[in-house]
Amino acid sequence: MSDLRHLEDFAAGQIFALGPYRISADEIIAFAREFDPQPFHIDEQVARNSLLGGLAASGWHTTCLLTRLMCDAVLTRSAMLGSSGMDEVKWLRPVLAGDVIIGEMLITGARPSRSKPGLGIVTFESFLTGQDSERRTELKGMVFVRRRTP
Amino acid sequence: MSDLRHLEDFAAGQIFALGPYRISADEIIAFAREFDPQPFHIDEQVARNSLLGGLAASGWHTTCLLTRLMCDAVLTRSAMLGSSGMDEVKWLRPVLAGDVIIGEMLITGARPSRSKPGLGIVTFESFLTGQDSERRTELKGMVFVRRRTP
Repeated sequence: MSDLRHLEDFAAGQIFALGPYRISADEIIAFAREFDPQPFHIDEQVARNSLLGGLAASGWHTTCLLTRLMCDAVLTRSAMLGSSGMDEVKWLRPVLAGDVIIGEMLITGARPSRSKPGLGIVTFESFLTGQDSERRTELKGMVFVRRRTP
Repeated sequence: MSDLRHLEDFAAGQIFALGPYRISADEIIAFAREFDPQPFHIDEQVARNSLLGGLAASGWHTTCLLTRLMCDAVLTRSAMLGSSGMDEVKWLRPVLAGDVIIGEMLITGARPSRSKPGLGIVTFESFLTGQDSERRTELKGMVFVRRRTP
């Protein structure tokens, strides 16, 4: 347990590198069939002729991949207790099949919870870019993290 | 194409019923292993002993299921062109294995895009509840929808 990152280990200004991760057409289609079955996410022919210029991942898929990369870099190494939500999700540009995404998670705050003793609130802003360094997906939110010394 | 719902068919105040959908332990674990591999989402033993009171779906999973229910009720029957993001995602209470979720999608606005001729912006607020009618997940966001008469 002591290896886990607790509230006291987080501070505004910390930056964690995320990725890289290469997204495939198969996983774009599988995710979209389950959660966001719109033609431009599941049909390569439709997608090529769309404004997106190719098979594009659901925005939710890119957000879930961003979450996974944050888990790998930070969250599953922390005494995490979930989240009550996110303040903003932005899908600025499409993530296409074959794209390699990387990103960053910036810690914007870390403070004890006023209502839950033993818990703290860590706020963050994170983003994904592609090979072109253009931002694709942005996320602002919070997670609950245990305090080492309540 | 004419069967599809266009911008002109949306108006503030419209409500679409979502679900019902029963969520299983297997799909909670499968989603979490891929996108949010935290112990309380993938280990039933850990989950039973946690504050959540049982195996709880990732908040992202509940948000993706809400999206799927919105697709089934409205979005895949509309001339949709994706979304640039969401304003707010709230995870108010956990969705546990075996819960049956239902929800509503409320249209809060429908207007032509100022920058993209031919396109409109439909804003919405949606939520999921469980059998107890308590709200679990809330979402505020927008989608782009084609205009019938640009």
